[in-house]
Parts: sequence; structure tokens; C-alpha cells
Amino acid sequence: MKGVLLVNLLVVLGAGFLQTFPLRAETGAQAWLRYARLDEQASRKYDNLPAAVVTLGDSAILGSSRQELIRGVRGMLGRTPRIETDLPQEGAFVLGTLQAVRQAIPNLQSPQHLRNDSFWLTHARANGFDSIIITAVNDRGVLYGVFSLLSRIARHEQVADIDELQQPGAPVRWIEQWDNLDGSIERGYAGRSLFFESGSVRADLTRAGEYARLLASVGINGCTINNVNADPRLVQQNSLPQLASIADVFRPWGVQLSISVDLASPKTIGGLDTFDPIDSRVTEWWHKKADEIYAAIPDFGGFVVKADSEGRLGPSVYGRTPADAANVIARALKTHGGVVFYRAFVYNHHLDWRNPQNDRARAAYDIFHPLDGKFEDNVIIQIKHGPIDFQAREPVSPLFSGLHHTNEAIELQITQEYTGQQRHLCFLVPMWKEVLDFDLRADGLHSPVKDLVAGKTFSRPTGGFAGVANVGLDANWLGHPMAMANLYGFARLAWNSDLGADAIAKEWTILTFGSEPAVLHTISSMLLISWHTYESYAGPLGAQTLTDILGSHYGPGIESSEENGWGQWHRADHKGIGMNRTVATGTGFVGQYAPQVAKVYESLETTPDELVLFFHHVPYNYVLHSGKRVIQHIYDSHYEGAQSVAAYVRQWRSLKGHVDEQRYAAVLARLQYQAGHAIVWRDAICNWFFRTSGIPDARGRVGHHPDRVEAEDMRLDGYTKVEVTPWENASGGKGIECVSYRGCKASFHFDGVAGWYEIDVQYFDQNNGDARFRLYVGNQLVDEWLADDHLPSVKIGGDTSTRHRIVEVALRPHDEINIEGLPDLEERAALDYVEIVAPSR
Amino acid sequence: MKGVLLVNLLVVLGAGFLQTFPLRAETGAQAWLRYARLDEQASRKYDNLPAAVVTLGDSAILGSSRQELIRGVRGMLGRTPRIETDLPQEGAFVLGTLQAVRQAIPNLQSPQHLRNDSFWLTHARANGFDSIIITAVNDRGVLYGVFSLLSRIARHEQVADIDELQQPGAPVRWIEQWDNLDGSIERGYAGRSLFFESGSVRADLTRAGEYARLLASVGINGCTINNVNADPRLVQQNSLPQLASIADVFRPWGVQLSISVDLASPKTIGGLDTFDPIDSRVTEWWHKKADEIYAAIPDFGGFVVKADSEGRLGPSVYGRTPADAANVIARALKTHGGVVFYRAFVYNHHLDWRNPQNDRARAAYDIFHPLDGKFEDNVIIQIKHGPIDFQAREPVSPLFSGLHHTNEAIELQITQEYTGQQRHLCFLVPMWKEVLDFDLRADGLHSPVKDLVAGKTFSRPTGGFAGVANVGLDANWLGHPMAMANLYGFARLAWNSDLGADAIAKEWTILTFGSEPAVLHTISSMLLISWHTYESYAGPLGAQTLTDILGSHYGPGIESSEENGWGQWHRADHKGIGMNRTVATGTGFVGQYAPQVAKVYESLETTPDELVLFFHHVPYNYVLHSGKRVIQHIYDSHYEGAQSVAAYVRQWRSLKGHVDEQRYAAVLARLQYQAGHAIVWRDAICNWFFRTSGIPDARGRVGHHPDRVEAEDMRLDGYTKVEVTPWENASGGKGIECVSYRGCKASFHFDGVAGWYEIDVQYFDQNNGDARFRLYVGNQLVDEWLADDHLPSVKIGGDTSTRHRIVEVALRPHDEINIEGLPDLEERAALDYVEIVAPSR
Repeated sequence: MKGVLLVNLLVVLGAGFLQTFPLRAETGAQAWLRYARLDEQASRKYDNLPAAVVTLGDSAILGSSRQELIRGVRGMLGRTPRIETDLPQEGAFVLGTLQAVRQAIPNLQSPQHLRNDSFWLTHARANGFDSIIITAVNDRGVLYGVFSLLSRIARHEQVADIDELQQPGAPVRWIEQWDNLDGSIERGYAGRSLFFESGSVRADLTRAGEYARLLASVGINGCTINNVNADPRLVQQNSLPQLASIADVFRPWGVQLSISVDLASPKTIGGLDTFDPIDSRVTEWWHKKADEIYAAIPDFGGFVVKADSEGRLGPSVYGRTPADAANVIARALKTHGGVVFYRAFVYNHHLDWRNPQNDRARAAYDIFHPLDGKFEDNVIIQIKHGPIDFQAREPVSPLFSGLHHTNEAIELQITQEYTGQQRHLCFLVPMWKEVLDFDLRADGLHSPVKDLVAGKTFSRPTGGFAGVANVGLDANWLGHPMAMANLYGFARLAWNSDLGADAIAKEWTILTFGSEPAVLHTISSMLLISWHTYESYAGPLGAQTLTDILGSHYGPGIESSEENGWGQWHRADHKGIGMNRTVATGTGFVGQYAPQVAKVYESLETTPDELVLFFHHVPYNYVLHSGKRVIQHIYDSHYEGAQSVAAYVRQWRSLKGHVDEQRYAAVLARLQYQAGHAIVWRDAICNWFFRTSGIPDARGRVGHHPDRVEAEDMRLDGYTKVEVTPWENASGGKGIECVSYRGCKASFHFDGVAGWYEIDVQYFDQNNGDARFRLYVGNQLVDEWLADDHLPSVKIGGDTSTRHRIVEVALRPHDEINIEGLPDLEERAALDYVEIVAPSR
Repeated sequence: MKGVLLVNLLVVLGAGFLQTFPLRAETGAQAWLRYARLDEQASRKYDNLPAAVVTLGDSAILGSSRQELIRGVRGMLGRTPRIETDLPQEGAFVLGTLQAVRQAIPNLQSPQHLRNDSFWLTHARANGFDSIIITAVNDRGVLYGVFSLLSRIARHEQVADIDELQQPGAPVRWIEQWDNLDGSIERGYAGRSLFFESGSVRADLTRAGEYARLLASVGINGCTINNVNADPRLVQQNSLPQLASIADVFRPWGVQLSISVDLASPKTIGGLDTFDPIDSRVTEWWHKKADEIYAAIPDFGGFVVKADSEGRLGPSVYGRTPADAANVIARALKTHGGVVFYRAFVYNHHLDWRNPQNDRARAAYDIFHPLDGKFEDNVIIQIKHGPIDFQAREPVSPLFSGLHHTNEAIELQITQEYTGQQRHLCFLVPMWKEVLDFDLRADGLHSPVKDLVAGKTFSRPTGGFAGVANVGLDANWLGHPMAMANLYGFARLAWNSDLGADAIAKEWTILTFGSEPAVLHTISSMLLISWHTYESYAGPLGAQTLTDILGSHYGPGIESSEENGWGQWHRADHKGIGMNRTVATGTGFVGQYAPQVAKVYESLETTPDELVLFFHHVPYNYVLHSGKRVIQHIYDSHYEGAQSVAAYVRQWRSLKGHVDEQRYAAVLARLQYQAGHAIVWRDAICNWFFRTSGIPDARGRVGHHPDRVEAEDMRLDGYTKVEVTPWENASGGKGIECVSYRGCKASFHFDGVAGWYEIDVQYFDQNNGDARFRLYVGNQLVDEWLADDHLPSVKIGGDTSTRHRIVEVALRPHDEINIEGLPDLEERAALDYVEIVAPSR
């Protein structure tokens, strides 16, 4: 036959078509777009939905809209609606812009003043038949309307009598990815880049297209694909066709492509001897570059700039301001409709820690506030939500209220850099809600952050949200199956900042795991408590995340933030802890806030407990509003946090059989790991503060582990004792390791009473080998396991300390417990201790 | 350290140890030994089980017994019982032979006269503490006792007050595999051989060991590993160490290794110029060979012999009898304790079909009955359950009652050669039960087959069961997840032939899929009806399986059994159907039965409907006991059978979420396929008999398919029409195929009323390519799929005809339906027809 060429049909249509019939392997790849088949009862609600779909217009986005509607209905209801080109002699789903819909259905009473990306879902008679209308000002709004309608069906909501208008809270709703051209992702925890490999754009961009669809489904309209520490090669002429291929897979989903650029590019790759932003050759270079890019990608979104920060070159080289730098680029983009996101994350990382007046928290405001009004209208200052860097707890950045004549976007971090790196459950929406709802009283006005960044408070032309997601090629996008709640929640807040954390958690849970009440309740409760839990064992009272800030940003590293120029100081010593940031006696940071806010933080009396150590230096015996002393709060919160994670494991287990086996197992494994690592955190922080302060735990827990046998105290055969650095990251400050390829053994006698016991083996699982362990009671092999995780360290310590739990072992007095370890490559089968616990039955 | 060498620890312990903690990927690999964790309520029953295990003795089998007990308790109850070397100061599971147990617990009142492999589970005070005793005459019996106890726990039965003695129904409970040295398996439908690859024994025998464990768990005590069409190289001296390695992985599970041998071996590999069984050099050769084998494998089981059958050489070459042949080998094995299974499956496959007196069914009795009493006591005559060859329905072989002084075993076929090849659900236990319970009235005595083969009727020293399993390397052993019920059921019947099919189905279902009432009821009902269903569309009234007997033995092939020498004749012509096997006017086969049985079959009046065509030739208008005419029975049963399979799909769907996703999907896919193929069977047989008899279906279905559009009647673009052979295997006798690499198209207009429709596309899925199909309504792509199954044929026809169902498509009058096909390799995207059905909603 002529013209039929089917070779690539499966690729052309995407995996979705073939996936609607076979049962899904629940890898998590479908995220919240599972379109799981409704049961018969729920399906019945939708029996009278139209059988036809009419699309008024033929853009790529309208094509995606129609395809998605068919895919969703097919998945959830098992039916294939038919495509009609004109209004048929029956009811239909009618998709199109308001202009097209008004033409096709002249009697339709439609709302006025819709903004771009808004959508209107309604029902009306079209051609004489009851129809469902999905319409908007622009095509993208129609696509959003389709996704919204499908989400309603997935959540079993009625749609027959629908009449709903939704408008986005902010025009800018962007995702940023920190992908490098070599395929790695800075602070990415779920595999390699969707976009790059080996220095080029990937040939197979299937996942990139699926990602765009996922983003579109929750209203994200832009995506920056490369690391803010930008590689200038990406804007070279020969890279542009490659970039265009990514824009091609984004376009049908209304996602604008943007990239991070290196401000020094005119010099490093442009052949100039300068990148001085006020040099006319530099101006010309950026104009030419912008023209080239827009020739290849007409709907290109713009640039993200990180400059004068953490070693990146910037305008300071030439004594110019960020405004000079941002504007030279912005002017080049303006005629094309592009924007510049200029990051306010500019600070000196060689601060003198000996000077108590120095304060990294001040930097953004100090630098950008004086420039207010000097930026082009297509520049957006991208401000991290707090003044430091995505810590477990920070106050809101005062810079949000420091720019009245400048566009702003809030930068939120979806990838959990400082909040457990997707190995710990930490649902960040409650934190973001606190930030967005925080009233900064700018100019004395009611000015919550959400209004400021949306441009509402000072009537700015643009502004909004930038979320750093860093998804990777792992099937489930973010590693932890529950971490996708953060990507979902970010987008939902960008669309509507008034949504509650609870509502978002429930929406996501239903779409991702189903609507069974036990599932919904359990998962949403775990999500909602999880930030508080993480904070309680990893960064109490506003002391930030007490992690290794010089390396992994993962495990505990309490002293790593001190006595260096990075400025993440908590100033803990043997008497007290906290940064004095008051105007009266401290760094003056508090003075950056509007008076009504500053007043609260200036005084210890009015500063809320959860931020007390961010703003004040207090003695350990300082009594909090809660009535607890600081030191006891530190001890208590860490024990409570670890207990809370242990409870997650029990809660999750109650869902066995209620969620699919694959995701059940994946989540359980992460929660079990987290339960062990929360204990590592608890012990490191409690022990450090106990030793530093000398003040014992009023409840006698810290430093007392009666069920614990230190590895260094066992009878060792082949194993050798080693000091662990920092000392608090191993129980007793020591561990044992094995360097013999034949393996080593550590033994001790159980001296408790007869009973069923849980045996917890604390070992170190480095990422430079897969050591093996066996545990015997006497000669009986009771368990064996591989240390084959890839935690972010090659060393023994807080990043790698891992718990292996063996339950219900019958022990009798004088039993000998033997642990054999077999090293692998550089991993030395290292052990910290064994804890033998009688579980309450 | 000295002496610790862990390199192979994971291999040494087997996968089981590591699998008890992580959640299982439910591939089916664990079969009925899942040891799934009991829920808390069910667990509570077992709270007071002993915590210790004492094994009295240290054989490999007792080691396995102990390991299995720990593994099972650990899996189901989450506890690790402790190993004690002597009776401890607490209750224990006490494992050991009766002799050892009596010594350790002198007051124990134990039963007398236990046979080998029997076991006794009881509770008693040992060393003053309440203990559970698992004991037997031999170690293997202890192992069986452990498996039985664990099965009880898995089925939530009480075990605390246990007191149960179980004795096996027959001493011989063997599995046979038809594996070839190249790694293929004759009539195997689940992957390559567990034992062989590329002419040698596999280096990795992990699965072979797991298979032995599975067999032991249901009391199987021997396994023959190679095809009865035996490759003589297997007994060459250099193969023996390889065979020994298989025996090594069988031994801990009490499974004796045996092999099939070629009777011509003394000549083909032995260097003699003869294999005449009464030649003294031949005698000596077999003695020497047996001695060599036993030197390598002291517990070797024996030989299986297929001779003078289907091209295999045998004693007839020298004018000797099967007894001569069996005895020469048996004498060589006797001093070592080995046995010979001599297959009674001996017949002439060049029978003259023109002679109405000829009858293959007579062969076994005619040859072996005269030799009764002439076999050595370690010879067992292995008799297929029916006189032909594992057809969907046969009468019981009369030979069972024809040997009074000779050992017998019944050969049952677990692999579904003639019963759907594990693509069709066919639970054979109800068939086997009918066979085993059939009273042959040997010597006028009550003599059900089960008693005859167990040696009870005529007090034979040995006898029992041989099951042809042909499991392969596919994760789930037999391909269809439900097919394992046949392996389980065979073994359970070999252990206790008095068990009911219903009880076996339920046991298996609980162990394999869990005990939830809906699961138990649905699956066991499907199993129990499935043989009847298969028979009703594939081989009615004792006409055998109307399949392609010259090739695949799979799809319909009605005339393939006629007019050739193979003797599987059903003698259907335009007037009637059936083999007259009466004494009075037929082949005389009926006379091989004892008079009381023969009397029933000799007369049409008393022959049961389900076997009428096996024993009699009748006109199509003959009225059955049921009141139906034969021809109408053929029509009705085929329609009922196809409907019954369609119901399986609905029944199975009701279990979504109640069984794990992976096995749910695997079973659903097989059932959906079967539902389509049952229609292929139905139409082929109904159309053939309609055309042959000229008698229309009283209910007007046969030949009338108003919803069907033949591919050859569509508008074709690139496709060409082809005749299908035999004609009845395609609707209308024709199909269409595409030879253009660019693809072809077939189109037609829908002329029904507007509504939601199911579109069934009947296409041909050969195993020599993966063609692709797309179906459009108008220009709308509605579905696409790959023809990537590997059905047993390279041709279009009854083996490859496959149905693809597309549900809930909205069709309107005059819609054009377009099907595009893209060939691949030799597969030509062939189509038979499309059926458009309005489902009842």
C-alpha cells in the first residue's frame, strides 16, 4: 500500500497507548497520572459521559489535550471516546479556546477576563446535545482543563454538571533541574539526567517528554534543564539543534524550555576578552546569542543566572552590579519575549567566622535591596525561601519584602538536599505553606510571601515560583516513591497557594495510591507529620540542618558548619548555642525585616521556639516557651523523631495488600532504612550536645544504651578497631573494620533472659563495595545480608551508618552471637554495634 | 581470621534465606511453598509454638528438614527458631527417626508398623517440656513431616495438639522429565531444561535443587531427568560425574535420581555389535554400566525404558520380548537396589487405517498381558492411564487389570500436551480421580486402578505413580501460573489417592494464592470445572482431542488423525463418527477388560455418553442418554465450552487487588488468550461437522456470525487473500496476509446502530516474527498491538489464530474501521476476521 509506514509506530504514539490495557507494573513511573481503572460502582457515575471528543483547532497542545482525554477515559473507564472533527449529532467533550468555542456554540454565556493558562470547565448544549466544554484563553489552558477533569474522575468526583473556572495564582510556574552535560545531576538522587549524557543531549528523549507531560498535568509552564553552575558549551551554535530537540518534546505539553547560562560566556566561549555587562561588545554578543537561540527555538523561555556565588564569576569582576548583569541579558531576550531569572543566592563563602558581626543570612538583602527598581521588566529575582540554603528550618527571606519595583520568584527545593535526599520521608508542603502564608508586612501592608512573589502586592507584571526538582532516569523519578508528593505539592501551590497541605496530601495520595480510606488516611498522615519529624531529629529550634555541610549534606556533621567561611554557623559551644542576629547585639539581620516582623524576632520573648537558635544565642539551660530547657528539648525531640519514624514502618505495614506489591516493598525498604538512620542522627546529636554541654538527659536516655554491645568491645577475629571521625557518628566513637579478603568475625555472649528478641546490627554501608554479613547464634546462621546500598560516602561515618534488623530470634542466656563480615573492594564490612531488644508483644 | 571463607555463602545457603525478609516478587517461583507471612490474628494461634529445634541425627535430609522448618516458621510467623543440639530446658520441635526419638524420649508411646516415608506428627513431653515431635522410620519421612506441619500452618490449622500419622499410598512416587541434552524439552511449555544445556549437564543447578525441594514438599521420591527418547551419551563414563552433580542437589531432599536409557546402548556406545538382551555380552555390559553408575551415585534410582515404540529400537529387533529386555537391565540394577520402569507405550505407528479391525488401543494389552509374571521383581511396567496417549478423554487402560504378577505404575501427564499446553487452563486432577477410582474388576475383585498400581490388589512388592511434568526454567515452572495445581495434585494423589479433587484444589489455592474466601472459592471453582470445559470444546464424547496429532498437538486439526498409521482414529465421515471397538462387530478392544467392565462398554445402551465415540461408531443423529443427538451435542458443548472460558475472565477479574499484581496479570493474559482460542476450537469443530454431516445447528449458531466481517471481504490495500489449511481453522476458510515491508491495510464500514462496542480482531500470531497491528476508527487510532507470542507454529492456522479484544469503542453508523498490519520477518500480519459485538451492559 502507499503511504503506510509503521516502523516507528510504538515510539510515535508513546508508551501510554499500549499501557492502558495491560496491568501496570507499579514502578511509580506513572506518578499521579496512573489512570487506574475505577471499580464498577465508581465507573457508573460516568456512564453518561459523552462518547465523542471534538477539538476546535489543531495545535500540538490541543492534540495532546485530546490524546490525554482519550487516554485518561480509556484508562479509568475502559472506553475509547471517538474523535469527531465537527460537533456531532450527539453530546461531546468540546475542547478549544474560548474564541473557537464561542464561534461553535454561539449561545454560550462565557466568563470575561480570563488570564492566560486559566481554564473553564462547564456543561452546555452544543449542536442541541448535552456536552462538556473544556475551554481557555490559550491552548495551554485547555490542556490544563483536560488534566483537571481527569483528576476529578480519578478522585471519583462528579463531572456531569461541572461549572468551574480556575485561574493560576502566578504567571511563572517553573521547574529547574541541575543537570550537567555529562549526565550527572548536582543534588539529584534518582539516577542520571533525562536530558544529557556524555556531553550531549540524549538521543532518546522519551523520558523528557513524559516529564513534560507530568509537569503540564499540574500546571507547570516552564523548565530549566541544566545546572545553575552552567556549562557554557550549551549555548554554542552547534548545541542549539540539540536544545531544540528537547524543546520539541516539551512543546506539545506547553512547557517552555529555558537554560542556565554562565555570565562569563562572552569571554569563555564568545571570543571576547571581557564579559563586562556594560561593554557594548558584550551587549552585542548576548543579542546575537539570543537571536540564534530563538531562531532554533521560537518559544524559548529564557535564562537562569547564578553569578558571584560559590565560585561562579559575576559582575563584581568588573565592579558592576547584578542589575547591570541581569539587564544586559534581559534586553537581548526582551524582543523575543524571554525572561531572566537572576538568583539572589549571592554570598561570600570566605566569611571570617571569628567576626561575630558577619552573617551570611544578610547577603541577599544587602546586595539586592539597594538595586530595587533597577532591573528590566523581564528580569525576575529568584529568591530562596530562607536566607541560608534550604535548611530543615529557616525564617522567611526578608528580601521578599525588600523589592517593591522588581519581579520576584520564590525558589523552593523539591529535591531533598538538606532534608534526607529522598532516603528520608519529608513532605515539604507544610513548610512551604508556612513560608508562603508568612506575612512580611512590606510597607506595613498585609503581604504574605505568596502575594509578593505572584506580583500581587506591588502589581508587578510577572513573578511566581521556581522549584528545583532534579528528577532522574530512575523509573519513579525521585527515588523515594513518596517524594513525588513534593513535586506535586510544589506545582499545586504554584497554581493555587491557598490550597492546604492536608488537601494536597490527600489529592496526591488518592491519585498515586488510590482512594481506599485506610490507604488515604495512613499515607496522608505520614506525609503531613514527616517534615516535623525530620526537623526534630536533624535540626532543632532553627539551628538549621546539623549535617555535614562541607560534603554530602546528608548524615549528621555537627561541627562541619563551624570555623569556616561558609557561614552556616550555629555557634554551639560548651555553654550555649545559636546565632545572635539581633539588631541590638547581633549581626543585625533582624533589621532587614519590616518593623512589625523585626520586632518579633528581635526579642527572645517573642521569637517562636522553632526559630530561637536562628536568631539568638542562648545557654543550654534557657527555658523555651514550651517550658523545656533548650538542652532537654534537643534530647527529647531527637528521641521523639526517631520514634516517629519507627511508627512509620508499622503504619506502612498496615497497608500490605492495599497498595501494589512493588511500591509497597520500595516504600517499606526506604522507611526501614530511615528508621535506622534516624537513630544515627539521634545519637550523634544527643551525644555531641551531652559531651559539649555536660548536661545529662533528664530522662536518662542519652549515653545509656543497656541493650547495646559495641563492636569494639566484642571478641574480634580478624577485625580491627578504628576511630570514627567525627566521633559522634559512631556509637562510642569507634567501629571495627576488616581488611582480610577471607573475612573477619566479631563475637559476644548474650546475657539477658530467655525470650524472643530483635537483633539490630549497626554497620557501615559505603558506596565503594558490597560487603557481606552473616549473623549466627552459636553455630546457627540466623541471617545474612549484603551492604549493597549506595549511600553518599566512601567512608564509615554518619552518611553510611545503617541498621539491619533481625526480628524474633529466640535467645537464651550465654548464647554466643557471631557476626561474620566479608569485605568487598574498598568496603570493609565495618560494624558499629549490636543492639538486642525485647520487643513488646 | 582462620577458616572463615565466605565467598560463596549466598550460593551455599540458597536463595531461601535471603528471601524470607524482603517481600517476594510473586513470579510464582515459590509455587505452594510461599510461606507468606500470616496476618496477626492467624499468627496468634502459633504464639506458643516451641522456640527451639532439635535434630536427632545429622544426615543431609535431616539438615534440610531443620532448615526447612526454620525457613517456614520464619516466613510465616517472622520468627527464627533456635537450633539446639540436645533436648533443651524448654519445649522444642524434635526431629528424628523413630529410633532416635524413642531413645531421646523413652516414655513416648509410638505407633508400630510404619512404612518407609510415612511420618508421625505428635506432641509430647520431652525432657519435661511440651514439645512437637516430627518422626518417621526413615529420614525422608521426617522431611515429609516437616513439610506437612508447615502446610498446616500455611492453611491456618491448629498444630499445638497435633497427633497424626500419614502413610504414603504407594512406594513409587516419581516425576519424569522429557529433557534433551541440548537443553530443549520434548512437550515442555515453560522454557529450557533445568538439567541440561548444549549437550552437557548445566553448571548452575540451583533451579534443579529448588525443584527437588518442591517435589519433596509433596512426597515425590524420585525424578527421571531425561527424555524417554533417550540419548545414550548420558550413560557414557565421562557423563557420570555430571549426573552425580544432579544427584548431589537432589539428595538433601530425598529425591532419587534416575534416567531414561536407550536399549540399543550396548551397540551404539558400548562397542558391541549387538544389543540382544539375551546375549551374554549385553548382560555383562549392563552390569558393568550399572556398577559404574552406582559407584558415582550410590543412591541412584534406576532406568526408564521406551523401546519398540515410535521409532525407538527394542527387543523386537532380535525377536525378543519386552520381558527379556527389561530383565537384562533389571538384573544389573538389582544388587544395587535399582528398578526398571518399562513403558507399556509400545505400538505400531504404521497401522493400516483401511483395516477396520486394526486398533492401536489394543497394543499395550496385547503385548504385555501375555508376559505377566515373566518380569523380574524390580521391573515396573509403566502404563499410560488410557490406551491411547493422554487425550482429553479416554477410558482406563485395561492393562492395569491385565497384570497380576507384575509391578505396575500409572503414567500420568502433568505437562498438558493434549490438553492446552499450559495456555489453556485444565486442572487434570478430576480426570485422574476418575481413572484412579475406576474399578476394573480384575479377577472379579474390587480393584480400582489406585489399588492395582499401588500393588495392593495383587500384593506386589512395589508400584505406584509416574508423572510427566516437564517443568522448565521459566520462573513459574510450568508457564501458566495455574498449571502448578496439576503438579501439586499429581503428587498429592500419589501420596493419597483417596483425596478428593475438591480438597486438593482448595489446598493448592490457599498455599498458592492465600485463604481469602473470594480467592479460594473463585480459583478452586475455576480449577474444578476446567477439564470439563476443555473437553467440551476440544474433544467431545470420547472422540479424543481433535487436534493436529501430526504436529503441534495443540490447535484443532480434525482430519489429522485419519488416514494414516498412527491409529488415533475417530473415523468421522459424512454419516457418523466413532471407533467400533466392540468384540461383536469391532476391533475387540473391549474384550481386554474384565467381563463386568467389558459388558458395559460392549453395548451402546450402557456405554456412558462421555466415551460413546471411543467405543462405538454412531450416526450423527444417534440420541445420547442425555436426550441430545450426537451432532447437537457437538455443537452445544462447543458453544458452552467457549462461554465457560469467557466466564473465567470475568471471574478472574473479580480477584483484582486480592492476588498480587504480577500473577494476577499473568493469569489474566492466559485466560484472555484462552477465551479467544476456545472460539477458534469451537468454530473449527462445529464448522467441520456441519459441512461434513450437512446437519444444521438446531439453535442456528453454527455458520452464522452476523457480527463478523471476514478479512477477505474487506477493502484491501496491500493485503492478499490466502486459503487456510485445513479450511476449518479460519473463518470462511480464508485469511489475508501482507508481504510488503511497508505494511498493508484492510478496511470496512460499520453498519450497526450507534453505541459502545467491543471489537474483536482475529489474527494469526506465528512464532517466526513479531508483526504489528493498528486499528483505527476513521482516522482515530484506537489500539495497537504486537503479535509477539510464540505459539507452536510458523504458519497461519488453528495453532496461531489469536483474538485481540478492544472494549468500549464508541461506533456510529458508517464509521470506517481500518486495520493496518506491519509484517516482521516471516510473520505476515495475517488476519482472519473482525467481530463487532455490543456488550450487554
